[in-house]
Amino acid sequence: MSIDVEVQKVSTAVRMLNAADADFAMQLDALLAWESVSDPLVQQRVDEILANVKERGDAAVLAYTAQFDRLSKDRMSDLEVPRARLLQALDNLPAKQRDALQVAADRVQRYHQRQLQSSWQYEEEDGTVLGQKVTPMDRVGIYVPGGKAAYPSSVLMNALPAKVAGVGEIIMVVPTPGGEVNELVLAAAGLAGVDRVFTIGGSQAVAALAYGTQTIPKVDKIVGPGNIYVATAKRAVFGTVGIDMIAGPSEILVICDGQTNPDWIAMDLFSQAEHDEQAQPILISPDLAFLQKVQNSIDKLLPTMERKDIISVSLRDRAAFVAVADLDQACDIANHIAPEHLELSVADPQVWLEKIRHAGAIFMGRYTAEALGDYCAGPNHVLPTSGTARFSSPLGVYDFQKRSSLIMFTEDGASEVGKVASVLARGEYLTAHARSAEYRIKPD
Amino acid sequence: MSIDVEVQKVSTAVRMLNAADADFAMQLDALLAWESVSDPLVQQRVDEILANVKERGDAAVLAYTAQFDRLSKDRMSDLEVPRARLLQALDNLPAKQRDALQVAADRVQRYHQRQLQSSWQYEEEDGTVLGQKVTPMDRVGIYVPGGKAAYPSSVLMNALPAKVAGVGEIIMVVPTPGGEVNELVLAAAGLAGVDRVFTIGGSQAVAALAYGTQTIPKVDKIVGPGNIYVATAKRAVFGTVGIDMIAGPSEILVICDGQTNPDWIAMDLFSQAEHDEQAQPILISPDLAFLQKVQNSIDKLLPTMERKDIISVSLRDRAAFVAVADLDQACDIANHIAPEHLELSVADPQVWLEKIRHAGAIFMGRYTAEALGDYCAGPNHVLPTSGTARFSSPLGVYDFQKRSSLIMFTEDGASEVGKVASVLARGEYLTAHARSAEYRIKPD
Repeated sequence: MSIDVEVQKVSTAVRMLNAADADFAMQLDALLAWESVSDPLVQQRVDEILANVKERGDAAVLAYTAQFDRLSKDRMSDLEVPRARLLQALDNLPAKQRDALQVAADRVQRYHQRQLQSSWQYEEEDGTVLGQKVTPMDRVGIYVPGGKAAYPSSVLMNALPAKVAGVGEIIMVVPTPGGEVNELVLAAAGLAGVDRVFTIGGSQAVAALAYGTQTIPKVDKIVGPGNIYVATAKRAVFGTVGIDMIAGPSEILVICDGQTNPDWIAMDLFSQAEHDEQAQPILISPDLAFLQKVQNSIDKLLPTMERKDIISVSLRDRAAFVAVADLDQACDIANHIAPEHLELSVADPQVWLEKIRHAGAIFMGRYTAEALGDYCAGPNHVLPTSGTARFSSPLGVYDFQKRSSLIMFTEDGASEVGKVASVLARGEYLTAHARSAEYRIKPD
Repeated sequence: MSIDVEVQKVSTAVRMLNAADADFAMQLDALLAWESVSDPLVQQRVDEILANVKERGDAAVLAYTAQFDRLSKDRMSDLEVPRARLLQALDNLPAKQRDALQVAADRVQRYHQRQLQSSWQYEEEDGTVLGQKVTPMDRVGIYVPGGKAAYPSSVLMNALPAKVAGVGEIIMVVPTPGGEVNELVLAAAGLAGVDRVFTIGGSQAVAALAYGTQTIPKVDKIVGPGNIYVATAKRAVFGTVGIDMIAGPSEILVICDGQTNPDWIAMDLFSQAEHDEQAQPILISPDLAFLQKVQNSIDKLLPTMERKDIISVSLRDRAAFVAVADLDQACDIANHIAPEHLELSVADPQVWLEKIRHAGAIFMGRYTAEALGDYCAGPNHVLPTSGTARFSSPLGVYDFQKRSSLIMFTEDGASEVGKVASVLARGEYLTAHARSAEYRIKPD
């Protein structure tokens, strides 16, 4: 018995760091260290699958689907889910789920409308017109993982920004191992206006979307999460098509002034930890007694959690409590971490927001649980992980729009600017550039 | 003699395609086909260099610089160019060049100011605040190729958008094989406000920027063109840092109604062809006689070009004239190609602009030579190549800004939205998510 009790203790006591320690920066960086797995064997297998699908199209995808998903079909059209079936799934949902999905979709759509960018032009004094034309992509692909990790919320979060952007056609792929479909996922696809759904997955699905097959149309961009085969395939086709970020495990950083209910904070930490053994929950507070209270809440609540096995590993391997001198220091550390999710569980969140430079999404105030953002707050739940919020953004409408520069010179404008271009082009020894500009210079 | 003449003919006669041909689509796709070289030996060498720089820092970079650039220094600080030296280079330029560079910088800066995005928030009826906070990156790296391909215009085009975005620090790397520096490049760096310059290059420079060394600070994003070692290294560090696109060879597509001076059009085609043997110049016109006139201009002008050897290979291997029924068909083909540069050398360019969906930059009217955009029109000359304009955009201020979602619920808002989140989270079997939301639901 004593052994069991000890194991239980080990798995729930969160490691404590103190920002005042001399080696704190080193300890923190060791905790944050996470490298996306890059497995040469997976790479080789994925390269093979990509080449095979590129060459043989439908036949290769059908063979891999039979092999990996235990789903044997004669024709690719047998793996397509008609749009009517999606709407039927939506219709068949219990009213409570259907209504919740509709509220979520409406809120997500409304928020993302604000991200829509428009073309612009301006005219200079001499009549020169400059600007940028903003257009949606023609066709995008959305990868949705199969099985238990098939989240209807992810379908909404990936498809709706594309829809708002005005993308012409949205193709979704979702593996259905053994033919088992997830009705909520189909319903979400129906609600979000996905145009075509194929029940394929893995790197063969990524290849089909990137290169096109006889049945599956080639897309311009592929978004959505997946396992290491999917991530490796996405990295490989980057350039042939656009991709979103390669996501790492989920993270939450909570900054708390010590005045929020410690049970709430413990559950907020759990809500990321339950995703994945590698997920990273961190709590920063200047209030040492509060950190102890949250530890007590964890000890009390963990045994009641359905996913306590996953949560325990995440807490043991990747969680931390960080004691700081004050909230200023907490914000500095948050900027260093650049977390995917940041909760400012404090009295005046707008004040502290000013100090935050890097975070995927910022949840302000004690009532704003991160979980609300996962489903229905409005903003996207596809967010930069592993510190990539230093240089990247939540998935958004802007990921499905692109820009073309516009330049129109008058005869006079081309003559004046041509003189400048000529000097610079000759400085670079690019004389065809220079002469092309010089043809448009008016004789004195 | 007859042999020489024949060779000359072969190298200047541009292949003619006709959009009315049954196999036109296939012919066009064969012409466009271009795959970025992915060489397993280069990959292996680059992986080695990256690992070595990551582990040994300055010492590894110094060793590679001695080996690859024939430049032996004891300390990394010996490879840093002080800012005063950049300003001295600017001061020492001939007035004509300095003035041209200043005009170009001013125009580029002015245009890019229009791209600056701002944070936004809105409040819903129940007091819920949603929004997006837009912030610049802390530090970015700019790769500038060495030798003849070191273009001062590229320094401006990469550094100025970062500067406009408000990036905290801009680090430039530029190899100087044998210690030979390009004064115009240093001058452009001085003018553009680059903060630090190191004379290093290749994958070792990319590694130094991505991982940081004892002397070179780690950056958040790396932009700028380079050879296959640089491109391979950038692809490998993608995710650790942000990168811009991996660029292919330059392209120009000219749509002409047949009324522009054929010499101008020939020179516009040359201005891309002179970049690179792999560059792709294409001319589309409904006027067959005009295509012949441009061929005559090419035959006449090519022998006078400094870079005729490069231009000839580009014309022979990758150029085409495409005869079409009308300008409508020309626009359809342009959308299929999604060219880096598109000249609408026609009478009413604004009319035809409406039909263009995919292009990096659009040059409208007979006077708007593409070369003006390379230097001083204002828009960026870093543009999506190889059809990637279907899903990507010119380099811009938006590449150096990123967004954080903002969410703040009131007690009432969290309660209402929490009910929706609870239903959806339970549908996904994520009960910690559900309970985290449910804690914030007010008792009835």
